[in-house]
Amino acid sequence: MSKKLVGMDRATALHEIHGWIEHEERDAIRKTFHFADFSEAFAFMARVALLAEKADHHPEWFNVYNRVEIILSTHDADGLTRKDIDLARRIDELAPEREK
Amino acid sequence: MSKKLVGMDRATALHEIHGWIEHEERDAIRKTFHFADFSEAFAFMARVALLAEKADHHPEWFNVYNRVEIILSTHDADGLTRKDIDLARRIDELAPEREK
Amino acid sequence: MSKKLVGMDRATALHEIHGWIEHEERDAIRKTFHFADFSEAFAFMARVALLAEKADHHPEWFNVYNRVEIILSTHDADGLTRKDIDLARRIDELAPEREK
Amino acid sequence: MSKKLVGMDRATALHEIHGWIEHEERDAIRKTFHFADFSEAFAFMARVALLAEKADHHPEWFNVYNRVEIILSTHDADGLTRKDIDLARRIDELAPEREK
Repeated sequence: MSKKLVGMDRATALHEIHGWIEHEERDAIRKTFHFADFSEAFAFMARVALLAEKADHHPEWFNVYNRVEIILSTHDADGLTRKDIDLARRIDELAPEREK
Repeated sequence: MSKKLVGMDRATALHEIHGWIEHEERDAIRKTFHFADFSEAFAFMARVALLAEKADHHPEWFNVYNRVEIILSTHDADGLTRKDIDLARRIDELAPEREK
Repeated sequence: MSKKLVGMDRATALHEIHGWIEHEERDAIRKTFHFADFSEAFAFMARVALLAEKADHHPEWFNVYNRVEIILSTHDADGLTRKDIDLARRIDELAPEREK
Repeated sequence: MSKKLVGMDRATALHEIHGWIEHEERDAIRKTFHFADFSEAFAFMARVALLAEKADHHPEWFNVYNRVEIILSTHDADGLTRKDIDLARRIDELAPEREK
């Protein structure tokens, strides 16, 4: 089972990912992605869905039109774990140039 | 352009849809759908995406694993309009038996 | 109802689109798209699905891993019509740089 | 690596799945699924995409409107393997009642 990232491990892990910030109210990370329109946003969501199902680790996410907000945290560990960092990295690879 | 639903028109319109409730803080309606797992939830989202793009009217929605929360409101009208009711009805047709 | 494209109208219409070729055995056009992997191919398919449902005009398509082959023809007209050209143009806009 | 199913192993494996037939020209199995419309067909495809990506084993598939044809074979083994049977079983679970 994954365990919560703390101390130096956490600091190092957070350096592997880009544009994700620590959630204000929970032990989680979040990032907002912007796209040209709904179609481009939904295509991105389809790719994230494939990643999530493959990793058996699912995001909390919100979409409205061309904007997608993703929150990652590990339910079993009640906080941020290596699984979240790994998924965040793979998501970053899908949309590197789309960040704003 | 769509105009905000008020008075009797609004009451009548809200009777056409099922399980949607008026948002506590905004002029909008919302409903939560539950599914067997992420795969079933995402398939539902794909169908809602097709409806939304066809109607050129997009939801605000949130998903985590097997749960999908949808909020409908019309940005241009700054509130609930006929477009929201129509989209809500079509969404209901996709998941009638899945409501909880 | 759409009618079959013939003569000069057809020749002009075929100039609007890129990389589509006339089907050898049917009055239709086809094009093959290549992507980095299945995920990228499926995201493209999701976008084409949104276009198709919005236009109420659906492709015949085949996918294996990173390859998507699309055939467009209009069933009602038993051949190529303006609807096919319009959908082909919109599909081209989704994947201009991915063509091979 | 998966190896081709032959003899009794193959016969037993083919009994685990429903409605799949052996391809006439290749060492593969295929099945056709029918749905109410394009939206329902595409939602099924989204679920199969999640299964395929998770298993790292992808179908050859064709869609037109409400019909989806799936062919399964294992490229590395140049024929039908256990991976195909396993994916076919999971696909059957998604659409048991929709078969025709």
